[in-house]
Amino acid sequence: MIKRKLETCFSPALFEPADHVDSIVVIIDILRASSAIVTAFANGAAEIIPVANASEAKDYKSKGYLVAAERDGYVLDFADFGNSPFNFTREKVEGNTIVYSTTNGTGLIELASGSYLTLVGSFLNLSAVIRFLIKQERDVLLFCAGWKNKFNLEDTVCAGAMAEKLIESNLYSTICDSTYCALDLWSVARHDLTGYIEKAAQRSRLRDKKLDDCIEYCFTSDITNKIPVVKNGVLVEIKS
Amino acid sequence: MIKRKLETCFSPALFEPADHVDSIVVIIDILRASSAIVTAFANGAAEIIPVANASEAKDYKSKGYLVAAERDGYVLDFADFGNSPFNFTREKVEGNTIVYSTTNGTGLIELASGSYLTLVGSFLNLSAVIRFLIKQERDVLLFCAGWKNKFNLEDTVCAGAMAEKLIESNLYSTICDSTYCALDLWSVARHDLTGYIEKAAQRSRLRDKKLDDCIEYCFTSDITNKIPVVKNGVLVEIKS
Repeated sequence: MIKRKLETCFSPALFEPADHVDSIVVIIDILRASSAIVTAFANGAAEIIPVANASEAKDYKSKGYLVAAERDGYVLDFADFGNSPFNFTREKVEGNTIVYSTTNGTGLIELASGSYLTLVGSFLNLSAVIRFLIKQERDVLLFCAGWKNKFNLEDTVCAGAMAEKLIESNLYSTICDSTYCALDLWSVARHDLTGYIEKAAQRSRLRDKKLDDCIEYCFTSDITNKIPVVKNGVLVEIKS
Repeated sequence: MIKRKLETCFSPALFEPADHVDSIVVIIDILRASSAIVTAFANGAAEIIPVANASEAKDYKSKGYLVAAERDGYVLDFADFGNSPFNFTREKVEGNTIVYSTTNGTGLIELASGSYLTLVGSFLNLSAVIRFLIKQERDVLLFCAGWKNKFNLEDTVCAGAMAEKLIESNLYSTICDSTYCALDLWSVARHDLTGYIEKAAQRSRLRDKKLDDCIEYCFTSDITNKIPVVKNGVLVEIKS
C-alpha cells in the first residue's frame, strides 16, 4: 500500500503552493484565530467571513454583519466583539454570519486556496479533524500560522499532536523534517501543555495585553466535532 | 545586567536582515558545507572562496584555483575534489586558497552580509565558537541553512547545542520560539545524535548518493578551535 504523504509547514513564508495542489491543508493558528473559529462553529455559527484588515471589517459592519475585530488587544470601536474564542458564545453566534478580522489567517487561506481542500484545525476539534482526514484519500499538509512569518511553538505542538494520530493510523508516512520536529516537540510538551507553552512568545504577548484568559481552553482537546472548511474564501461547517 | 539577545532562524526564507545589523550571525549547514569549511581551516587552508554555481567554480579553476565542486553527488569533471569534509586533507589544503561551490551557503553569506559579523559554525568547532561569542558584546543569530528553504533537523540540533551553552553562560537570554525549539530537539537528540538523525531527509539523500561516510564525523564535537569568518565575501580564519 502506498501511504499518503504527511508534511508540515512552519510559516506562510515557507509555503510552496505547487507542492500541495492535491493535498488537504489544515490551518493551525491556535492562539487564537483557529480556536475562535472552531468555537464559533461549535456554538452554531452559520458561516465566517475572514477579512484581512480593520477597514474591510468596518465595511462589513456598515452592511449589518456581526463583526469580530481588535487591534493590539483592543476591540475596535465599530466591532461587536474582539477575537477571543470566549466571545463566540451560542447566544451571539448561533445561525449568524460572522466577519472575523485576522491578517495572518486570511493570508494563510489565500496561500492555500490552490489546494484540494483547506480546513481549520485546533486542539478543540483535533479528533474530528483526524477522523475526517483518515476518511479521505489525500496527502495532508499541517500548515502552522506562526507569527509574522516566524516559527511558533504553540501551532507546532498542535501539528505534532495531529501528526502522531495520523501516523498511528498507518495510512500516512512522512519524510518531512518539520513533521519530525513537531512530533518531538509534542512528545516534550504533551504531559504539561500549558506549562510548556509558558516560554512561547505569543504566551507573553497575550499576557501583556491581558488576553491570556483563553490559554487553557485553547489547549483543551475535543470539545467539538465541528470542522470549518474554506469554500470560496468563506468558512463553513464541513458536511462529512 | 541587560543580557544579549539570542535568536535562531530556520531557513533563508525566514531571515530578516534588518533585525540583525548589529548581531553576530553563525551560519550552520552541518551536512556538509559548514563541516567541510571548518575542516579545511583545521587542516591549514588559507582562505575559502564560496561560489554559488558550477560555472563560477569553473572560471576559478581556469585561473588556477583549487576547486571543490560537485553536482548531485558527482565531482564535476573540472574540479579537484568534491564537497565532503574528508576531501579537505592537510596534504591538499594547507596554505592554499580553495574555491568551494555551495549554492545554499553562498546565499546565506549574502543574506547575512549586512550583519556585524558572519562566521561558520558546526559541531566540529562548537566550543571555540561559543568561547568567541562569549567574549563579544553582541546579540547572536544562529542561522540554520535548511535545505531548499525548508527547515531541517541536523542544523536545528546543532543550533540547540550552541544555544544551550550560550544560555548557560548567563550572558544571553531568548524570547525566540525557534531557539526554544532547537533547545528541545537538542535535548531529545543529544544522547544519540547519529541515531536521532537517521530520520532526517538529508540523511536519506546522502545515503542514496553514497555520500554518508561523513555523518559520524560531522556530529563530532570540538575537533578544532578554528573559526571561519566572512571578510568581503571570502572565508578566512578568525584572529581572536
